[in-house]
Amino acid sequence: MSGIAKTPEPPYYAVIFTSQRTEGDRGYGKMADKMVELASQQKGFLGMESARDEGVGITVSYWESIDSIKEWKENAAHRVAQENGKTKWYKSFSLRVCRVERQNFFEM
Amino acid sequence: MSGIAKTPEPPYYAVIFTSQRTEGDRGYGKMADKMVELASQQKGFLGMESARDEGVGITVSYWESIDSIKEWKENAAHRVAQENGKTKWYKSFSLRVCRVERQNFFEM
Repeated sequence: MSGIAKTPEPPYYAVIFTSQRTEGDRGYGKMADKMVELASQQKGFLGMESARDEGVGITVSYWESIDSIKEWKENAAHRVAQENGKTKWYKSFSLRVCRVERQNFFEM
Repeated sequence: MSGIAKTPEPPYYAVIFTSQRTEGDRGYGKMADKMVELASQQKGFLGMESARDEGVGITVSYWESIDSIKEWKENAAHRVAQENGKTKWYKSFSLRVCRVERQNFFEM
């Protein structure tokens, strides 16, 4: 899952999730691993990219359609994680849903 | 510049730049700071979010229009950085241009 996602030709969709964490793990790491596993089994999932440093974490997930994003949003385990995110894990976050229109890849 | 970008109501545009670095700095840090400074002075610039860990770095910049993205792409100093990126700083990268259609913010 780590690295650069090998997405198909656009158009497809991206969810950009940028977050600032609270202190301590509080079950976050285990949940995050589980969510990656579940998302990647979801219909319409195309890939995921994730990086975190002292400032913020950015996770971008890629999807075939808006409908596949909606289905993932409604996934039961994911809904529990969303709720815990707001009460325990995140100080703040932004979530943006985008239509990817162009892409370029470079490899040395 | 660090943290979560305070973007206006969609629609607007995002450039998702995901990269894997080569070893060593080789002038990268200085260039990166300069590019953030220059981009933020560019017409149509709305904000930027950035995170890097051992795996990849993700930088998302937000723009008013496709035209403002094109102008930034053609910026002379940025063109030099793009060239050095391919020859010195990046093992691989992906660049995706997206139309942001929806956003949500959460603050504890």
